[in-house]
Amino acid sequence: MMVNSAEKAAQSLERIRQGKPLVHNLTNYVVMNFTANALLAMGASPVMAHAEEEVEEMVSLADSLVLNIGTLSSPWIRAMLKAGRRASELGKPVILDPVGSGATSLRTRTAREIINQTRVSAIRGNASEVLSLRESGAGARGVDSTHQVEDAADAAVALASELDTTLAITGPIDMVTDGSRIVRVMNGHPLMGKVTGTGCTATAVAGAFLAVDPDPVDALVSALGFLGLAGEKAASRASAPGSFMIALIDALYTITPPELAAEIKLEVGQ
Amino acid sequence: MMVNSAEKAAQSLERIRQGKPLVHNLTNYVVMNFTANALLAMGASPVMAHAEEEVEEMVSLADSLVLNIGTLSSPWIRAMLKAGRRASELGKPVILDPVGSGATSLRTRTAREIINQTRVSAIRGNASEVLSLRESGAGARGVDSTHQVEDAADAAVALASELDTTLAITGPIDMVTDGSRIVRVMNGHPLMGKVTGTGCTATAVAGAFLAVDPDPVDALVSALGFLGLAGEKAASRASAPGSFMIALIDALYTITPPELAAEIKLEVGQ
Amino acid sequence: MMVNSAEKAAQSLERIRQGKPLVHNLTNYVVMNFTANALLAMGASPVMAHAEEEVEEMVSLADSLVLNIGTLSSPWIRAMLKAGRRASELGKPVILDPVGSGATSLRTRTAREIINQTRVSAIRGNASEVLSLRESGAGARGVDSTHQVEDAADAAVALASELDTTLAITGPIDMVTDGSRIVRVMNGHPLMGKVTGTGCTATAVAGAFLAVDPDPVDALVSALGFLGLAGEKAASRASAPGSFMIALIDALYTITPPELAAEIKLEVGQ
Repeated sequence: MMVNSAEKAAQSLERIRQGKPLVHNLTNYVVMNFTANALLAMGASPVMAHAEEEVEEMVSLADSLVLNIGTLSSPWIRAMLKAGRRASELGKPVILDPVGSGATSLRTRTAREIINQTRVSAIRGNASEVLSLRESGAGARGVDSTHQVEDAADAAVALASELDTTLAITGPIDMVTDGSRIVRVMNGHPLMGKVTGTGCTATAVAGAFLAVDPDPVDALVSALGFLGLAGEKAASRASAPGSFMIALIDALYTITPPELAAEIKLEVGQ
Repeated sequence: MMVNSAEKAAQSLERIRQGKPLVHNLTNYVVMNFTANALLAMGASPVMAHAEEEVEEMVSLADSLVLNIGTLSSPWIRAMLKAGRRASELGKPVILDPVGSGATSLRTRTAREIINQTRVSAIRGNASEVLSLRESGAGARGVDSTHQVEDAADAAVALASELDTTLAITGPIDMVTDGSRIVRVMNGHPLMGKVTGTGCTATAVAGAFLAVDPDPVDALVSALGFLGLAGEKAASRASAPGSFMIALIDALYTITPPELAAEIKLEVGQ
Repeated sequence: MMVNSAEKAAQSLERIRQGKPLVHNLTNYVVMNFTANALLAMGASPVMAHAEEEVEEMVSLADSLVLNIGTLSSPWIRAMLKAGRRASELGKPVILDPVGSGATSLRTRTAREIINQTRVSAIRGNASEVLSLRESGAGARGVDSTHQVEDAADAAVALASELDTTLAITGPIDMVTDGSRIVRVMNGHPLMGKVTGTGCTATAVAGAFLAVDPDPVDALVSALGFLGLAGEKAASRASAPGSFMIALIDALYTITPPELAAEIKLEVGQ
């Protein structure tokens, strides 16, 4: 199964490069440029559109939808719900990034509302954000995690079952679970935490993989392995965050499917 | 005429570097930072302001106005119309970037409304976007073009006459026409398509050239040749999109007027 | 006192790297990504949140608040006032960046309203922006300064007393005053003016220093010296704005406290 997942990641990357899936993003202001460049570099086609008047039309053209609550306001919340419901009706994959959920009640509430009103294929966040979707009262500090990934493993498995979705908790080691399967991704580099929006970018990259892979666990594992590997490649060329973020974009462009198959580091298991 | 255009491009660049024209942008969230940096690097002064309460005052201080509909919403549409009307009254050049026109009806409608209510000096888009301003029903895919530049040439010449403006359709070869003259710009590099907002940046750069050159065809040709040449220079230093986009900004800063005159590649004619 | 300030700057940088203060930014769209990366690179934790519904909750988690009026609109103004008042009640440091104050009446009015309703610890702007807070009718050109720092020195000292706050006017030489003390910071490099948002970044970096240093003059001097030194380091590696801005982020990460103590260039005095 480990080999399967690695080969599937490579196939999916190949498919993205061939098909250039259109990934519709309603994401936060801070990371829009970076995630659009990440999607373009890896071979996908990003589109950003957030007006209530057009999100349903835009998502109907798209191959997947990314909802990221990093810089919310009321019009954006309405547009996210509208886009999410439409994508669900059309059977298009939706991924949620609950940035800062747990830190403010607006974010926690909005994340839960999106989950309730949308058929969310997957949710990616740090441990605090994902745990906040279950435990009310779990505090977060800004948008940074105060929980370790491993502490969250059991809770995530239970929550994935409860919500009937796939959860990805990212940190030094990433964990992906749909409540029955659980896969850990060991790729990555500490400098990724020093660039704003690498988490958001993981979600956007996963949006591209979801567009070509109907299995959300595999799609998330592929995305996190791919981005983590790009981080490793970038770290071999740069040792500070500015040049690292540029090298990361470069790596998303240059990593080949066979390289991904060879260097993705997964652990399937309990 | 080819030599003339090349020398005029160089003169205009020189004028921008001397006069630092203030280019007022109402543009999309994704590219704001990149286009501001592009304008600064080339020698212009960018300003971003989008509140209905201040756009008229701001545009009256500016030397040109860039309207880019890449991430629309109602307040921005109202502000764009207000700024556009005021600029028209004051005789300041306005350039429109109809991002995604044809993809959603909100965008198509907004682009047409801006054209109707504003004295637009020039419009820059890909073939699908520009064609959508004429043919209702022409589909687009996200914000990427599904038409080739050359397919659009005849339609563009007719449309430029009909709208009484200058149209620039960009792609591997760029085409600029005011309905009677037609100039092709051959500078550029495929990696430009792998960086988000290079099209939007072409429009912003054209905003700077329009501020110093009263002839919109020449201004657009100069701008597209200059940006395309910057892409060529960048590609000689970088082979992946992250380092390429940084090298592109660098090139906008380092290209001298004589270099531009020598290396701009134009084809005047039918 | 010069040695003291230099050593204090180093201590504060050390404290930021240890404590990772959470800096809540309500800032403009153009610079959000760059300032978030600058804060992360230097060791702070940035958070962006602007919804009226959550700014009070978010600022109560934060260690300082940055209000930057670079791309205003009504909902943002309301949110800035709300966040500023709450931060004042909680005794958290607030820094204001009056981008373009003096250029449009909306900006001048908003800057003054923030000052009136908030206990602002410090204000950082160029000379025109800061002077506009006093002299009504002082014109500005876009967001660029039309005044020299030194012309503004006397006015700034008087204004700091009048407003009972600390003012930092940045330019080739930066000046910080609380109305009695006055310190000049000589670090920096001309290329900083060719990257969008270096002024805004100075304010955000100052937000991080204010979070660990209760003395606003020292905090601002430390911040401006640190950022200026980063500009010098970046200029030793890059000679054009694209690669310079990346090298600047790198330098914010790599400069050590002892280096800062050794290379910060201050002049205390009248």
